Amino acid sequence: MNKMYLGVDLGGTEIKIAIVDQTGSIIEETGIANNGASVPKTVIAEIIRRSRAMRNFSQVVGTGVGVAGDIDQKKGIVRFSPNLGNWKKVPLRKMLAGHLPGDIVVDNDANVAALGAVWLDAQGKARNLICVTLGTGVGGGIVCQGKLYRGSSGTAGEIGHMSFDHDGPKCNCGSSGCIERYIGAPYLSRFAKGLVEVEGSKIISKLVNNNLDAITPAILSQAALMGDPLAKRIWVDAGEKLGVVLASVINFYNPDMVVLAGGVSKAGKLLLDPVKRMVKIRAFSTSSRECKIVISRYTQKLGVVGAALLAK
Amino acid sequence: MNKMYLGVDLGGTEIKIAIVDQTGSIIEETGIANNGASVPKTVIAEIIRRSRAMRNFSQVVGTGVGVAGDIDQKKGIVRFSPNLGNWKKVPLRKMLAGHLPGDIVVDNDANVAALGAVWLDAQGKARNLICVTLGTGVGGGIVCQGKLYRGSSGTAGEIGHMSFDHDGPKCNCGSSGCIERYIGAPYLSRFAKGLVEVEGSKIISKLVNNNLDAITPAILSQAALMGDPLAKRIWVDAGEKLGVVLASVINFYNPDMVVLAGGVSKAGKLLLDPVKRMVKIRAFSTSSRECKIVISRYTQKLGVVGAALLAK
Repeated sequence: MNKMYLGVDLGGTEIKIAIVDQTGSIIEETGIANNGASVPKTVIAEIIRRSRAMRNFSQVVGTGVGVAGDIDQKKGIVRFSPNLGNWKKVPLRKMLAGHLPGDIVVDNDANVAALGAVWLDAQGKARNLICVTLGTGVGGGIVCQGKLYRGSSGTAGEIGHMSFDHDGPKCNCGSSGCIERYIGAPYLSRFAKGLVEVEGSKIISKLVNNNLDAITPAILSQAALMGDPLAKRIWVDAGEKLGVVLASVINFYNPDMVVLAGGVSKAGKLLLDPVKRMVKIRAFSTSSRECKIVISRYTQKLGVVGAALLAK
Repeated sequence: MNKMYLGVDLGGTEIKIAIVDQTGSIIEETGIANNGASVPKTVIAEIIRRSRAMRNFSQVVGTGVGVAGDIDQKKGIVRFSPNLGNWKKVPLRKMLAGHLPGDIVVDNDANVAALGAVWLDAQGKARNLICVTLGTGVGGGIVCQGKLYRGSSGTAGEIGHMSFDHDGPKCNCGSSGCIERYIGAPYLSRFAKGLVEVEGSKIISKLVNNNLDAITPAILSQAALMGDPLAKRIWVDAGEKLGVVLASVINFYNPDMVVLAGGVSKAGKLLLDPVKRMVKIRAFSTSSRECKIVISRYTQKLGVVGAALLAK
C-alpha cells in the first residue's frame, strides 16, 4: 500500500502543509498565511488544526517539518529562526507530538529542500545530490547514497560559506570572500546598483523608477530578458562565480546531480548557462560528465515535499 | 573470533603487505622492493608468493589492494598508474582471484589511506573523516558514516583540485588556481626556489649546496627547524592556503576529523599550526569545533592497513 506522510514547510510569510506519498507526489495540500510576529503556540495550534482537517489525514503515518533557521535536528528544537519573528528554543517536536502522526522529524529548510529535489527534480533517481538554495542567503543540502547527510554536528551543506575569493569582502559569518557574499540576493542587488551608478542602464533605471535601491534579482532577470547588456553581464558574472565554487564541490563530492533552487534561481538560463560553462572548464571531466546541473522546476514545493519525506 | 584481512599497498618503489585484524592492528607484515619498470605479471606473482608465505595466511578471509593511480574500483582494474611503470588496463582483481583469499577489492591510494586513518589515527571513532594526502599531488579520501564514499563515478575526494584562487596559475587538470598547484611538493619547492633567489637564505642554500633545484619540502622543514625565517614563512603560507580550502571543506562536509598524510605532512606543526589557525578564522565555529585536524602518525601504514580494511 502507498504510505502517506505529512509535510509542513514553516516559512515566515506562508506555512505550506501537504500530504505526500512515498515517491513525493502531493496527494493533498493547503496553506496558511503566516505573520512573522506570531507566537509559536498560536502558529503551532493552527498547523495542527489545519492538518487534522485534511481529508487524507487518517492515512498519514509520519510527519516532517522544515524550518528556516538553526535547528537541533536530534532534539527537534528550533534553536533560532529570524524569519519566524525570532523564534528561540522552540521545542517543536514536543509541541506537535501526539497531535500529528508518527515521530515528528524537524530539519532546516536547506536539508528539506535537498530531499524534495531527490524526489521532484531527480524523480527518485539521484543517489548523491546537492541542492543549493539561492535566496537572501545561500544554503545547501547534501544527499548521500539516497539519504540526507547532516555531518558530524548537523551543520553540513554550508555551500554559501565556501570560499570564492579568500581575499574578498568580509562575510557575516566572520570569514571573507564566501560565495554568499557575491550571489546572495542583497549582495547581488548592491553589486548591480554600483555598476548601474557607474555605467548606467536605461532599462534597469526605468524598471525601478530611478530608485536603484529597489534593484532585486527579479529586476535584473527582467532587464536581462529585455536585452539590457549590463544585466546580462551581471548574471554571467554571478553564474561564473557560483560555477567556480560548484566545480570545487563536484571535484570533492562527485554528485550525480546539483539542483539550484530558491528565489535567485528564477533567473533560469541566465544563471545556469555560465554555471555550467564554468563547471565544464574547471571540474574533472569524469566528475562533471556524471553530474547534471539543473534549476529546480519545483522551488515552491521542495520544502513541503522534502519535509514530508523526512518522515519516510 | 577476530577476523583477519590481507592488505597490499602497491607503490612504485615498495610493495607493503600486511595481515591486519578488524580494528586495523597489524598482525604480520612484509615488504618487497619494487622496480617501477616491472611488468604486472611478475610483480603480481611475487605479491601472491610472499603473501601465501605469511604465517597467518590461512586465517585471512579477505584481500584489499591500494594502488596509486586511476582505478576502476567496480571492476578491480588499474586503468592507469604512472608510478608503476605505466601500468595500463591491468585486471588486478582477476589476476589475484583464486590466489589470495576472498573477493579482491582494489581502490586508489587516497581512498585506502582514508580508511586506514579511520582505524589508525581515529582509532575507529571517526564517522565522517577526510584524509588529505600531501605529496607530489594532493589527493583526498572521504569517509561517510564510517564507510568509504567514492561518489557517483568513483572520483570523489579530489581535494587537490578544489579552487584556492580562481585566477591562479594553470593546473595540470586544466583548471587554474587549484590548491595542488600551490602545495604539491614540486610547486612548493619551485615557489621556495623563487623566493630564495630573490630574498636569499643562507641556511637553505647551504642545505642544498647552492643547487636551488634540489630544494624539497624536507629541506624546507629542516631549514625552518634550524630557524630560517624564509623557510618558516613558506610553511605558514602553505598552511594558510591549505587552511582556506579545508575551511570550505569543513563548512560543506562537517567532518569530525581531517587527517593530513603523505610526504609534505612530515613538516608537522610547521604546516599544521597555520592550517588550524586559518580554519578557526574561516570555518563556522560549530563545524570547526567538532573537527579535529591532525597530522597522521601513521603515514607509512595508512595504505597497507586501509587496503586490508577495504576487504572488511
